[in-house]
Amino acid sequence: MSLRKFFPNNFDFFELFEKHAGYAVEAATTFKEIARTGEIDLNLYSKIRSIEHEGDEITHLILSQLNKTFITPFDREDIYNLAKELDDIIDMFNTITNQIRIYKIKNVDSTLVEFADIIEESAKSVQIAITCLRDVKHHESIMRCCVEINRLENVGDAMRDKALAELFEKEKDPIGIIKWKDIYTDAETILDICEDVAHIIETILVKQT
Amino acid sequence: MSLRKFFPNNFDFFELFEKHAGYAVEAATTFKEIARTGEIDLNLYSKIRSIEHEGDEITHLILSQLNKTFITPFDREDIYNLAKELDDIIDMFNTITNQIRIYKIKNVDSTLVEFADIIEESAKSVQIAITCLRDVKHHESIMRCCVEINRLENVGDAMRDKALAELFEKEKDPIGIIKWKDIYTDAETILDICEDVAHIIETILVKQT
Amino acid sequence: MSLRKFFPNNFDFFELFEKHAGYAVEAATTFKEIARTGEIDLNLYSKIRSIEHEGDEITHLILSQLNKTFITPFDREDIYNLAKELDDIIDMFNTITNQIRIYKIKNVDSTLVEFADIIEESAKSVQIAITCLRDVKHHESIMRCCVEINRLENVGDAMRDKALAELFEKEKDPIGIIKWKDIYTDAETILDICEDVAHIIETILVKQT
Repeated sequence: MSLRKFFPNNFDFFELFEKHAGYAVEAATTFKEIARTGEIDLNLYSKIRSIEHEGDEITHLILSQLNKTFITPFDREDIYNLAKELDDIIDMFNTITNQIRIYKIKNVDSTLVEFADIIEESAKSVQIAITCLRDVKHHESIMRCCVEINRLENVGDAMRDKALAELFEKEKDPIGIIKWKDIYTDAETILDICEDVAHIIETILVKQT
Repeated sequence: MSLRKFFPNNFDFFELFEKHAGYAVEAATTFKEIARTGEIDLNLYSKIRSIEHEGDEITHLILSQLNKTFITPFDREDIYNLAKELDDIIDMFNTITNQIRIYKIKNVDSTLVEFADIIEESAKSVQIAITCLRDVKHHESIMRCCVEINRLENVGDAMRDKALAELFEKEKDPIGIIKWKDIYTDAETILDICEDVAHIIETILVKQT
Repeated sequence: MSLRKFFPNNFDFFELFEKHAGYAVEAATTFKEIARTGEIDLNLYSKIRSIEHEGDEITHLILSQLNKTFITPFDREDIYNLAKELDDIIDMFNTITNQIRIYKIKNVDSTLVEFADIIEESAKSVQIAITCLRDVKHHESIMRCCVEINRLENVGDAMRDKALAELFEKEKDPIGIIKWKDIYTDAETILDICEDVAHIIETILVKQT
């Protein structure tokens, strides 16, 4: 059973959310390139910035349509929160990329590469879960994605703790500590926000069943 | 057409929000004085603190009236969010002033002076937008303020990035980096919260038209 | 007059919230032990972690029941916010304990001991207020708890400011400053979140009277 036919308004929230999640994955993939290069070339940096602008626009579009639309495919507050959190994910890619640029990071760090892999996996699970939201029959696939996103957040948590412990153990330059502490912390924050998205999606499912 | 006559409750939310925004501007102007002096004299410090207390009281008044009032001039959640964000703006002035005091900052920093100017401009735009909320016919003036607040946030973003890049380039004392990184970051956060206020105001407008 | 008889659903939100607040107090007491020892032994660390998991489960239970329950003892958004904030309190104990572990803190710090005392007092007031929520006749006891939680937050604010001022004055090692700045800031954040809980509880009371 498709939910869409019950919400015959011209405005397709699902389509917008799919686009939004697509931008998150695109940002994650670009961030992986940056982590693997260990340095920001201006092309990758401006790519992240342009993805962020696209994300801003789609957030704005979702929220303004939300305020104009009487019947929505799921609870208004869930639409609002979902758009906000997807926007936050994309913003965090901009923040962390910006830090790498401002801090003039110029070496590949294997932990950051690992982080970038995990983050891309999580963003892809977010995308699948959101694409499946169109149809209640995908309930189980969505739940699997949410479980996976939660798992990846736990992996990221442990990764950040290990990275910080090593940083404080090995790095003798306080300015290096300041820089990498920010970067590892923000990398983990992206996974936290993906988990927030998973929670919102679970909320939407609970209400539908 | 005035919205007020449709909401003939004794309690005037508009008046309270105007007062609230007035405190935000007062805090911004005091912060500008602090930035220009490059040092906190106790009078300015206690002035920020007393503005914060007034702000707390008015937030409390708005929220408790909100819970007691059946008919409100705009959506309850928007009133709630607007009061919270205005409170957050004023709190951030207290936070940043407190940092300048605790970190014993004692020199004029031209970037912070520039920040203080931009912040005051943004707070004044917030005040104008809120004052105009009383009457739908001010729709365009409000939108102009929101656009301006967004513009100032972008200016602040670039300003913070430039300030941090210079800080990490020139400052050799890690403790100096810790202090000024906090101050620049918090200065930019004030502009972020002003932008959040602009978004709430846009939401209110969208619903009314 | 008991509120419960008006909400004869099988699901007892009050009981869950009491349990949730109980975990917050347990975490606070464990944190006090850690602060007094000035070092983390693995037992205390894993105790905090297991409390956090219990807290996560109860949060999840409250939110999923909220989505399934039509009639709730107080406003849905207040139930949602209360569960979220209690969860945040317990998470912060995990965060700060984790920092002490990662930063390899190994000395008793009298300020942190004082903080731990204040935090435990605040968590206990949160617990009493929540336990009293079952019955409107406890209105005054609840209000006394909320006033106390607000007072303790102010005490904590001043304590953090004093601790940071001393840290920046006396500590010459920037890495030590980075570590203790985090710890003091997070200790104060726990009191902030307790204050957020008090605000939600006041909101619930205002709506009932």
